[in-house]
Amino acid sequence: MDLLTPFKSKVVIRKELPQNIDRENSLLLYDEVLDDLAEEYDGFARYLDSFPYQVGMKAGEKVKSFENFPNHLKKVLKAWPQPIKRSQNLVVLGGGSLGDFGGFVASILKRGVNLIHIPSTWLAALDSTHGGKTGLNYMGVKNQLGSFYPASHVYVVRDLLETTPDSIVEQAYGELIKMSLIGESHFFEDLVLEKRDPKDFFWRFLKNGIQDKYDVVLRDPFEKTKIRQTLNFGHSLGHALEAHFGWSHGDSVLQGIFFALKWSREKGILSKSLYSEIFDVITQKFDRVPATQLQWYKKPSSKKMAKLLEADKKLDANGRLNFVFLKRLGETVVRPVPLTDLLDEAKRQNWIK
Amino acid sequence: MDLLTPFKSKVVIRKELPQNIDRENSLLLYDEVLDDLAEEYDGFARYLDSFPYQVGMKAGEKVKSFENFPNHLKKVLKAWPQPIKRSQNLVVLGGGSLGDFGGFVASILKRGVNLIHIPSTWLAALDSTHGGKTGLNYMGVKNQLGSFYPASHVYVVRDLLETTPDSIVEQAYGELIKMSLIGESHFFEDLVLEKRDPKDFFWRFLKNGIQDKYDVVLRDPFEKTKIRQTLNFGHSLGHALEAHFGWSHGDSVLQGIFFALKWSREKGILSKSLYSEIFDVITQKFDRVPATQLQWYKKPSSKKMAKLLEADKKLDANGRLNFVFLKRLGETVVRPVPLTDLLDEAKRQNWIK
Repeated sequence: MDLLTPFKSKVVIRKELPQNIDRENSLLLYDEVLDDLAEEYDGFARYLDSFPYQVGMKAGEKVKSFENFPNHLKKVLKAWPQPIKRSQNLVVLGGGSLGDFGGFVASILKRGVNLIHIPSTWLAALDSTHGGKTGLNYMGVKNQLGSFYPASHVYVVRDLLETTPDSIVEQAYGELIKMSLIGESHFFEDLVLEKRDPKDFFWRFLKNGIQDKYDVVLRDPFEKTKIRQTLNFGHSLGHALEAHFGWSHGDSVLQGIFFALKWSREKGILSKSLYSEIFDVITQKFDRVPATQLQWYKKPSSKKMAKLLEADKKLDANGRLNFVFLKRLGETVVRPVPLTDLLDEAKRQNWIK
Repeated sequence: MDLLTPFKSKVVIRKELPQNIDRENSLLLYDEVLDDLAEEYDGFARYLDSFPYQVGMKAGEKVKSFENFPNHLKKVLKAWPQPIKRSQNLVVLGGGSLGDFGGFVASILKRGVNLIHIPSTWLAALDSTHGGKTGLNYMGVKNQLGSFYPASHVYVVRDLLETTPDSIVEQAYGELIKMSLIGESHFFEDLVLEKRDPKDFFWRFLKNGIQDKYDVVLRDPFEKTKIRQTLNFGHSLGHALEAHFGWSHGDSVLQGIFFALKWSREKGILSKSLYSEIFDVITQKFDRVPATQLQWYKKPSSKKMAKLLEADKKLDANGRLNFVFLKRLGETVVRPVPLTDLLDEAKRQNWIK
């Protein structure tokens, strides 16, 4: 599938790694964990080697830290013969954190060089490489710095994604479930009918998830309106849990979805039947339960949670934040809710003390 | 004059400082040299004081250095209550270097906060605050990092500009002369007729210069084509002289204009009569001569000059760079010239050894 979006990105969904990139005019920035993959697969080693200019970097939140940015940037620039031209490519082969870092570098180098993403994780393939957001964390604030800078090309490559360990696939469940619920293609209905294991049907729905994300993003590429807020479904509590427990983004969002679904039901926004059906899919098909049901779950204090939520999104003058509820498949309702209401509900659902 | 440009900037040319900025939702970033101005003028001191959140910084090339960027950014963020919202304003009150730094910060903070420029120098008022370019220098390369990020508003304020010392006005002569020659309003013709001293007629032509710059910029806001190259008139040799001698940008460009005019004439691109007329205006009205005619001028070596020119613009595969010649008022010709030809001409004109 090729998807040419009006804000510049061309998404190419295919089996094999792209061979048509002008290597001489590119710097390959790749997750150094992929060196292991290169040891295992000759073809992949040859692919890396075909780039004359390349730099491997350790992925993770540290690569997104602005405190480390000067060193990381120097490493990138040392690997790339100067002077760099704006028409040259920064090719980022990695997951979400490396993509956020590399996208940011591409956006500010020579006021913007050409950016190409080859996501190496399912989560990046489904979510973060699409939509043009880049970001670095600073002074404890997630994505305090960043830019809107769509890649010219995103290559979503099945051969590459299928080499990733199961645990990495699982980290993408949260965002896939989110898109299946809020996306306008309603692919949740097809998810319900799937008989296979999520790892086996993920590729099938990846395309739906990407398409549904662009359907939202392209109505507001630079987030000038509130349209993109729908993509934050599951992210309010999700981000707070991610910050507090250090869980992966995907796992945190999945937990945030449990919270948002229950609250949507509690408020009568979501019907009982759809609520139950969604819950069944997540618990049975994806084998996930709310962390509150697990014995090891240690509730954060209400005070800590309030702080994390405030740091994530600025409250309005009345102490409210925008919360995304699910109304029905493909339809969310964004409502300003007092922070205190959110905390009360989190307490009621046993997320916090 | 109000000029609403389709790529977002509104240019307001007026007598007094703007009072309509929402101060509570702004951070004022100002050139700390203006503290002296505040001591002299009560009104200006009150203006600065009207911003509850503010930070003074030393302008100059150091504020544009990426090596210092982490410290400078921290200073900005410490002065601004967190969390910052994208709808808040970064108001930059300063000259070109602070504008380049502040514009860059605005472009990457929260993926872009609102940017307002109040240029405090004639050069910034005429040139750098318009056109959306921000920039930081890194590893010896000018504007190695940066972004395209137009200000939402540029307030060009006569009261403020008229407080600047004469030497600062003079630094803007080069860009004013450039715009009078290449701009489509042909305001060079009016310059010729002016009887006053440049310091006294500068305000009159400032508007023409700004308008003419937008006429170019808006045909290619993000520099996807070669249209904006015309604005580089005088800048090839100019940038090299600036780097070698440490002259101000404006003075260097003025010298680069001498070089470009002579070469345009030498190649027969520019008529003898227009060439003479322009030369007369620059030497008589603006009281400037080519530095090569001055006893203290110490020629750089050809080798050094070659290095500086190469570092500034990447040469094409044939060792050529794009040079901007003047054909007639409002019309330039951009031609790829071998670096060796440029050096030969620079030698012929006595710029280099």
